[in-house]
Amino acid sequence: MINDSQKLARRLKLYLICGEGLTPEETLRKSALALDGGVTAVQLRVKSWTARECLRTAEELRKICHAHGALFFVNDRLDIALAAGADGVHLGQSDLPVPAARRIAGSGFIIGASSRTRELAAEAQRAGADYIGCGAAFGTSTKKDASVIGPEGIKCALSSAQIPAVAIGGINAGNIALLEGCGACGAAVSGALLNARDPEAVARKLIKEADRIFSKTFI
Amino acid sequence: MINDSQKLARRLKLYLICGEGLTPEETLRKSALALDGGVTAVQLRVKSWTARECLRTAEELRKICHAHGALFFVNDRLDIALAAGADGVHLGQSDLPVPAARRIAGSGFIIGASSRTRELAAEAQRAGADYIGCGAAFGTSTKKDASVIGPEGIKCALSSAQIPAVAIGGINAGNIALLEGCGACGAAVSGALLNARDPEAVARKLIKEADRIFSKTFI
Repeated sequence: MINDSQKLARRLKLYLICGEGLTPEETLRKSALALDGGVTAVQLRVKSWTARECLRTAEELRKICHAHGALFFVNDRLDIALAAGADGVHLGQSDLPVPAARRIAGSGFIIGASSRTRELAAEAQRAGADYIGCGAAFGTSTKKDASVIGPEGIKCALSSAQIPAVAIGGINAGNIALLEGCGACGAAVSGALLNARDPEAVARKLIKEADRIFSKTFI
Repeated sequence: MINDSQKLARRLKLYLICGEGLTPEETLRKSALALDGGVTAVQLRVKSWTARECLRTAEELRKICHAHGALFFVNDRLDIALAAGADGVHLGQSDLPVPAARRIAGSGFIIGASSRTRELAAEAQRAGADYIGCGAAFGTSTKKDASVIGPEGIKCALSSAQIPAVAIGGINAGNIALLEGCGACGAAVSGALLNARDPEAVARKLIKEADRIFSKTFI
């Protein structure tokens, strides 16, 4: 029997994070190409736009994601996630705490939490998070201040986790295979797709690899 | 008989906006002094802190406000306002639209909307806003990009409004009297209190003036 966590795990297999450094139009265009290539979830992550720009883009992105059968998340801003009809919110360690978000959003709304250690992963799970974002897997120019824990660090952080996890940080077609056996059920990517000349082709390559690598991981 | 708008109008008489450019500790300390002096509402407005810093400060500020019988608002971030137990949220023209916020927050939660023209004021009212923020009343160094419409511009913007309004922008003890008859029921201040050597004394002066100026305004 397949439980909710297993269903969610499958839908987190190739998770695009986009928005920062792009215009709303670029965000929608590149996301659509990546979704055509097989991306299973998209997160809008942007600090420099106004809330209204975020909301408008989130509403469009939610439609594109759902038309592709993909999940749609908003980073940090629970209010925008709810207003846009997103499937969930992703919360970093400096964002709203998971219990506060859960009280506002209720059950049925997906909450992801960044957790780079076993302690933080356990805390996120206890607090009611539905999935964990764990990294940085590799060095990345997208988020220069993220410290790299590598596939081994991810494996350690996820060793007791009973909710799905997505590996994040510098993942691309050249290194995704190194995540095999790290305990994650999917890979979050950003630059690998957004900086690609052909995001659709790269997404196809990544989802093929992800299908193989993560097929046995979650439970 | 006094209706809800009249009750709200009285509680918006002297409205402190604070946070930006201050630390969380300074924000709490200066707000407490201003509340001791008679401020009737406080809005936490800050873009540069993390959501978690905002939430922690908002929770403290809400307690201090309520201990003084004052209202507490959060600017822009409806999620933080709800998580912190604030009385309401204030939304600018680049923030979430009022109807989207109302759907999430439900009734009984106060929503304020910045509206500098008669059209925007009418729109805010139709959309379900509980009060209007209208300005800039005077030139201000706190928000340099705000264009000044003056007490006459405020009077024009509020000429058809049937919900309470707060005048905002560069208001201090030296010019607050010029707002008499502009249609607002209160004054929002920032620098006048936050840059004062004795915020409590300045608040006392301002609330005395506000009592006189706004006593006849709303309905």
